Amino acid sequence: MTRVAGIMSGTSLDGIDVAIVDIGPRYKLKVLAFSTTPYPKAVRNTLLAVSNANCHTADIARLHFLLPELYAEAFNALCKQARVPIKTVSLIGCHGQTIFHEGDPVRFVGRSVASTLQIGNGAILAARTGIPTVTDFRSAHIAVGGKGAPLVPHLDHLLFRHPRRTRVSLNIGGVANITAIPSGIAFDTGPGNMVMDNLVRHFTNGRQTFDRDGGLAARGHIQHRLLNLLLRDPYYRRQPPKTAGREQYGQEFLTPFLSLSCEDAVATATALTVATIVKGIRLTGVEPQDLIVGGGGAQNPQLMGLLAAQLPNTRVLLTNDFGIDSDAKEAVAFAVLAYECVHLRPALGAVLGAIYPPN
Amino acid sequence: MTRVAGIMSGTSLDGIDVAIVDIGPRYKLKVLAFSTTPYPKAVRNTLLAVSNANCHTADIARLHFLLPELYAEAFNALCKQARVPIKTVSLIGCHGQTIFHEGDPVRFVGRSVASTLQIGNGAILAARTGIPTVTDFRSAHIAVGGKGAPLVPHLDHLLFRHPRRTRVSLNIGGVANITAIPSGIAFDTGPGNMVMDNLVRHFTNGRQTFDRDGGLAARGHIQHRLLNLLLRDPYYRRQPPKTAGREQYGQEFLTPFLSLSCEDAVATATALTVATIVKGIRLTGVEPQDLIVGGGGAQNPQLMGLLAAQLPNTRVLLTNDFGIDSDAKEAVAFAVLAYECVHLRPALGAVLGAIYPPN
Repeated sequence: MTRVAGIMSGTSLDGIDVAIVDIGPRYKLKVLAFSTTPYPKAVRNTLLAVSNANCHTADIARLHFLLPELYAEAFNALCKQARVPIKTVSLIGCHGQTIFHEGDPVRFVGRSVASTLQIGNGAILAARTGIPTVTDFRSAHIAVGGKGAPLVPHLDHLLFRHPRRTRVSLNIGGVANITAIPSGIAFDTGPGNMVMDNLVRHFTNGRQTFDRDGGLAARGHIQHRLLNLLLRDPYYRRQPPKTAGREQYGQEFLTPFLSLSCEDAVATATALTVATIVKGIRLTGVEPQDLIVGGGGAQNPQLMGLLAAQLPNTRVLLTNDFGIDSDAKEAVAFAVLAYECVHLRPALGAVLGAIYPPN
Repeated sequence: MTRVAGIMSGTSLDGIDVAIVDIGPRYKLKVLAFSTTPYPKAVRNTLLAVSNANCHTADIARLHFLLPELYAEAFNALCKQARVPIKTVSLIGCHGQTIFHEGDPVRFVGRSVASTLQIGNGAILAARTGIPTVTDFRSAHIAVGGKGAPLVPHLDHLLFRHPRRTRVSLNIGGVANITAIPSGIAFDTGPGNMVMDNLVRHFTNGRQTFDRDGGLAARGHIQHRLLNLLLRDPYYRRQPPKTAGREQYGQEFLTPFLSLSCEDAVATATALTVATIVKGIRLTGVEPQDLIVGGGGAQNPQLMGLLAAQLPNTRVLLTNDFGIDSDAKEAVAFAVLAYECVHLRPALGAVLGAIYPPN
């Protein structure tokens, strides 16, 4: 049994997820503890300012060294709260914060270059915790010709493979992504909660940050004309693999929603998330017997209802039904990926990650 | 015996240094091959645009993935040219390209943060070469309270320690730095070649990039008024440890030189480099019996002559006299640091680096 911590902060910039997992023989997983720590507002704003934007190199470098201090504090607090002695944790996998991702190569200075950039320096985290720390999981995936995302499918495969049933695992974070099991086809389907959340923030002047229990969407009407227009984006038709970044669904994307009422806007954004997920599932070529849903979106009954209605032949389950809290799944995935890295075992086609010895 | 490659690209942005070194028992070093490969002009310009400047995150991420392709090509070419089979190289240490360095903490988003940022992704280099690659040497030094620089003193100590003689090792790169042996006091003394080089570029409209053999300085007159003014910078009096970055000696620094003739400007810049080195040596508190000089500046007889004249009680030697080509020294240092990292041996107070397994 190896005790590993996974630390994740997603593109929604909500905060820091920490999971502590015991990995037993044949990858039997037991999640001992999980916490989410919001980013301080000033940190979140500074992260937004450097994410896929013009900024000063200084801000990137300073955040690269500030974030791991926050990660270490969140980790230490969870250990204390859950009474897990820090010394029993033998490894940390830390995803870091993505500030740029371009899984498809572009022409750059005369070459074809794909790239990804996560900040949150592993040397600081390893020094503050005294625990070997693995970071930078996405780069090796790109190095061997992958797109650097999604990586959670490695855990999906471990958790959800079934001898007879075809399954799709769906994670609805800022962006939504699916993994078909056993085929392993995995890609981002389009927006997850990001457009909904941004609209709620806009219409409530920041007083609310997401559509709690789908209440706003439930009171609104889906504007099908706008929905159909948005669904024309060729991304949704494109064959996988493909990745979507938060930059695709930023402020500009909100513009056509802003003439609607708050409720109609959120209802239409919810429908867009569902419709693009369904389109994504069709692209896998298999109608799954089970759809296993995790991520913040799984807690939105309006979204889940629409989804079930559009997939009448599919049983909709929750990640939680498999003993992994859905909120914890991404953090657990990076604990498992760190474990694979230090054993030099490939995950998704390559040994992923960089190992920082502790100091 | 372990064969290790060291890859270095310095703040002068000249290009990529690759050294292949056999490390034997008790750190006996034998440099098998060394090469310098200039950066393509477009790459150099793009690097300048992202170094300590406002830029788009995309350019940083793309360079982070482009540079290791160039590093791998330079390494493969050297192996071929020197007839070193790639399979005999068991480890690579790659410094990467510094685009930001702030060894002293600053207030940032409510915290005190020191930081450093080298680009040149190790996952790409490890995948292209098939060799485990260590990168990001400076972060752990900062993590344990160091300034992230200089790191070459670790090699200085291995190479130059002497049972009876007090020594100072001096490297004159873009910035100049010294290491006192055996005390280990090490710091940047101030400008190395950078101000001279920038002035030559300016006055020749880029036709010349450095003062070959000190010829321009030899024909000029030192302007003591300007020299004394520049020497008032409190940096030169400050107690070590301290680090100087290329941003301190950028375009703005050149302004007071521009009303002089080219020759007088270069002569005065040469005198500034020498005077600040001598001030630095005085700060170590020991008048060294030997001064061991390496870096591009060691090939500037005007500079070396001034230096010897100002240190009448010190024997001036060259790094080359110790079997390490002075040009190769920094690259060799990062080969040795990578070797220390994978053996989990501290260098300068911490285990330095992040280990990327090959793919």
